[in-house]
Amino acid sequence: MTDDGVHEIENLTLSCGRTLRRARIAYRTHGTLNEDRTNAILYPTWYSGRHWDNEWLIGDGRALDPARWFIIVPNMLGNGLSSSPSNSPAPDNGPAFPPIRVIDNVHAQHKLVTEHFGITTLPLVLGWSMGAGQTYQWAVSHPEMVQRILPFCGSPRTAPHNQVFLDSLRAALEASAGFDGGRYTTPPEQGLRAFARIYAGWGFSQAFYWNECWRELGYTSLEDFAVGFWEGFFLDGRDPNNLLTMLDTWWHGDVGATPGFSSTEEALASIRATTIVMPAEKDLYFPPEDEAWTVSRMTNGAELRVIPGVWGHFAGGGAPGRDPRNADTTFIDRAVADLLDRPSGI
Amino acid sequence: MTDDGVHEIENLTLSCGRTLRRARIAYRTHGTLNEDRTNAILYPTWYSGRHWDNEWLIGDGRALDPARWFIIVPNMLGNGLSSSPSNSPAPDNGPAFPPIRVIDNVHAQHKLVTEHFGITTLPLVLGWSMGAGQTYQWAVSHPEMVQRILPFCGSPRTAPHNQVFLDSLRAALEASAGFDGGRYTTPPEQGLRAFARIYAGWGFSQAFYWNECWRELGYTSLEDFAVGFWEGFFLDGRDPNNLLTMLDTWWHGDVGATPGFSSTEEALASIRATTIVMPAEKDLYFPPEDEAWTVSRMTNGAELRVIPGVWGHFAGGGAPGRDPRNADTTFIDRAVADLLDRPSGI
Repeated sequence: MTDDGVHEIENLTLSCGRTLRRARIAYRTHGTLNEDRTNAILYPTWYSGRHWDNEWLIGDGRALDPARWFIIVPNMLGNGLSSSPSNSPAPDNGPAFPPIRVIDNVHAQHKLVTEHFGITTLPLVLGWSMGAGQTYQWAVSHPEMVQRILPFCGSPRTAPHNQVFLDSLRAALEASAGFDGGRYTTPPEQGLRAFARIYAGWGFSQAFYWNECWRELGYTSLEDFAVGFWEGFFLDGRDPNNLLTMLDTWWHGDVGATPGFSSTEEALASIRATTIVMPAEKDLYFPPEDEAWTVSRMTNGAELRVIPGVWGHFAGGGAPGRDPRNADTTFIDRAVADLLDRPSGI
Repeated sequence: MTDDGVHEIENLTLSCGRTLRRARIAYRTHGTLNEDRTNAILYPTWYSGRHWDNEWLIGDGRALDPARWFIIVPNMLGNGLSSSPSNSPAPDNGPAFPPIRVIDNVHAQHKLVTEHFGITTLPLVLGWSMGAGQTYQWAVSHPEMVQRILPFCGSPRTAPHNQVFLDSLRAALEASAGFDGGRYTTPPEQGLRAFARIYAGWGFSQAFYWNECWRELGYTSLEDFAVGFWEGFFLDGRDPNNLLTMLDTWWHGDVGATPGFSSTEEALASIRATTIVMPAEKDLYFPPEDEAWTVSRMTNGAELRVIPGVWGHFAGGGAPGRDPRNADTTFIDRAVADLLDRPSGI
């Protein structure tokens, strides 16, 4: 069974110093919370993703089986379902929406998990891409709660090259006709299409395109994929100011900024949760080298397990239309099962 | 000694069927053409480059030594010096400038070399990036003239992922405020800055940014490099319509489209020139895998020699401000020397 809800937080004070009043965290749960509240898994969303976009990894017979686990998928601030530029009342609407950091998301999710559900322990936190960033932040911020983490295709600190990629997305959207400093009445369609075209080069690997793997998703030419998948993706109700809010969150991602720590390395060394870190072999903005570095800075025996193949970042994305039994999903599902079989790190 | 000139071609009929009247090919030469006209090397420019941007590889004591060789650097059509949207009279000006193919550049350069200089043999053709594309095309179009080729960081056919990258540049520029379908009176500055920001992610590798190699060029922070190097690069008089003309040339690059050939493979198999193919290890849009494929389709014993290191595409670019004795330049210079020592392929 699934259940949708919205948890309202009277005052969510952000790391920038501003306070979101009546902040809303939208979420979906899968399965049933057991009596002692010990079977909850947290699986945050990714850049522009909505809770339903995580469902490809959840299901009967999967490691994330709702018959056994109570899986909570909280929506990131800025994604259009939780508090966002697009759905906030004045004066926090549109480009006046405050900057959000990864730790603010984790702070809000912690309230959802503890205050709303009364949960004090999490057998697993996992996530893809920005979901991985939130996963690392959970392990650093709440070591007493997080037993295991599985961050895939993401990082504890946004690498400079990744920031360059993000800056290009932002620059194209902000330069586009009709964006008008975020005060558009209709989202600038051509700017969103350009945004999508930039993303297209980064989301999948060179070899993915060379091999025409988009055929597996039902597209009939490169241009058909560029329009149908990518432009369709960002014209699917994804608001430009929302995209810029989440982009800013991503850009600033760094567990080293957690109060009490003086560096990324120190924060990583503090992680006690049992860990499998899973970059994808040909991910162009979270390359495996970066996560090899991450694991080298962890002191808890974290395992680095690279997802092989040519799907690049989207190896961990459960792309719509892809065979649910594809090799990448099977590989990740297996890692989730392996990790859940290991002893808690706390 | 260097000499600048412009060769005018009365009627340059293009592969699209249109004719550029009084087409101009601007060029610079280094050194002196010998009496029997057997010491000419052709070194075409790259995407948006001008003839002076090739000079880092030319000089006393280098393989491309003007004391020995007569080095001709022809400017690509569309680069603002040769015939381009920005300098053509009506009706060929601005967005009405005709589409240019790589083979059209080679056609025009062939006229310059044979009709203007009276040269019938070329000991070497070489080039970086789009210059590499022109190099391959020379070997396919004029096998009787080209003794050796050294294409670096480029390809005989633009790969689909590379096209995705190019489409993103085009989409951002065309979507930008003030572009106005190419009928701007002032170039859209914010659009050019976005264009530059996109390029920034592709031109150098992830590791280049991780290691802060931009410090070697004199920049003081990531943002300083993004603005100073990249935005400065494209705000340096590079006209948007010119950029789109050359982008379109690049996008359609394919030696397989040469009349008389039915595929890229067939065209590659026809190359007789002695060849060293040099991709850069971490080039993000001309990855070494693609050039391994190219070499596998050549039948002349072409050597694949990968430029090692983290500079990515710009390993072959002689970035302004870089130590002229850097490892990449030395590596390429050595390959030029090695190739010139080998017997002609014809």
